[in-house]
Amino acid sequence: MTQLQQLTDLLIKFRDARDWKQFHNPKDLALAISIESSELLEAFLWKPAESVPVEKVKEEIADVFAYLVMLADHYNLDLEQVVREKVQQNEVKYPVDKAKGKSNKYNEL
Amino acid sequence: MTQLQQLTDLLIKFRDARDWKQFHNPKDLALAISIESSELLEAFLWKPAESVPVEKVKEEIADVFAYLVMLADHYNLDLEQVVREKVQQNEVKYPVDKAKGKSNKYNEL
Amino acid sequence: MTQLQQLTDLLIKFRDARDWKQFHNPKDLALAISIESSELLEAFLWKPAESVPVEKVKEEIADVFAYLVMLADHYNLDLEQVVREKVQQNEVKYPVDKAKGKSNKYNEL
Amino acid sequence: MTQLQQLTDLLIKFRDARDWKQFHNPKDLALAISIESSELLEAFLWKPAESVPVEKVKEEIADVFAYLVMLADHYNLDLEQVVREKVQQNEVKYPVDKAKGKSNKYNEL
Repeated sequence: MTQLQQLTDLLIKFRDARDWKQFHNPKDLALAISIESSELLEAFLWKPAESVPVEKVKEEIADVFAYLVMLADHYNLDLEQVVREKVQQNEVKYPVDKAKGKSNKYNEL
Repeated sequence: MTQLQQLTDLLIKFRDARDWKQFHNPKDLALAISIESSELLEAFLWKPAESVPVEKVKEEIADVFAYLVMLADHYNLDLEQVVREKVQQNEVKYPVDKAKGKSNKYNEL
Repeated sequence: MTQLQQLTDLLIKFRDARDWKQFHNPKDLALAISIESSELLEAFLWKPAESVPVEKVKEEIADVFAYLVMLADHYNLDLEQVVREKVQQNEVKYPVDKAKGKSNKYNEL
Repeated sequence: MTQLQQLTDLLIKFRDARDWKQFHNPKDLALAISIESSELLEAFLWKPAESVPVEKVKEEIADVFAYLVMLADHYNLDLEQVVREKVQQNEVKYPVDKAKGKSNKYNEL
């Protein structure tokens, strides 16, 4: 079993012990990912990154990751595969010679 | 090397080939995670989950994942460890006997 | 008729001409507000505020405002009243002598 | 003085009494708008709109509105004008005969 499958199992076991699958439809999981990302963002609000406590960042990264894994699991997606495919797409959207040193979106390169 | 380290390497290599580290300070990475989560959410806007194309969901999951991995890498965090620790904290915050079948936040249980 | 009522009327008329009320349930309106806020945020991604084009900011502010007004309208809320009440609550949560010059949340003052 | 100018004045007075202008650069204001929108969204998480308490919705609408007004004020924008211009743009992007009864984005009509 891969590392991501093991983490998925851990999170699904946590969810099922609490009978939470009934709430975790994909639309609400997408809401949860967005809400947790915003809590991560809140750690950086009104301050420079240097004064943000790493402990806070760690907790919010874990929350985003957990819901992301559960949404991927809902669709039976292989997260590694999904990421590898997106990187391949981005190789085309952001060719090195055009994108190097620029923060523009692909449609503004 | 673990699966998550391999994916991290892939993403960092993609970033460095484009000389993008200069833009990827942790505050902007937190913005990027939030923005990509919102694009994921947009796939579900005005419609039931059943009519959302999986292809769109896959792409946005990959984008959130990629920036999450890069933020974790910035802080030299071990993502697996971070997730396991959060699950342990949540075992305490959401004890099975109190949280079972309820969607409330821990402070409203 | 107040200025906010006039803007509400304008936005409702735009919506009704397109028969969009059927999509604008309050949950999806909340998604729309969050998604448009994120597009506003995207204008600032990877760059300092100085290099953000005001035109982009204007358009996204308008979008957030429009959905906010429509959500308030759904609940028959008087936006001015809602804002004045919140300011009064915040006077208590953030007393001047404790909050002056500090960016902390009220529970960390 | 218009209703929106009066609300702007109220919010700016609240801010200045606490000496918070120093934190309210436009990038962080955009973060704040996004974070508050996400707290509004959280009111709807895991539940149908009917079971969301209006009091919670009111408070979060006020918070989004407040930061939106302060960001507009930073750029010396006339919010009414900004909204009216966007509605005019949207009349073109979403012509009634094409957009009626459809929830698609303008580029998918």
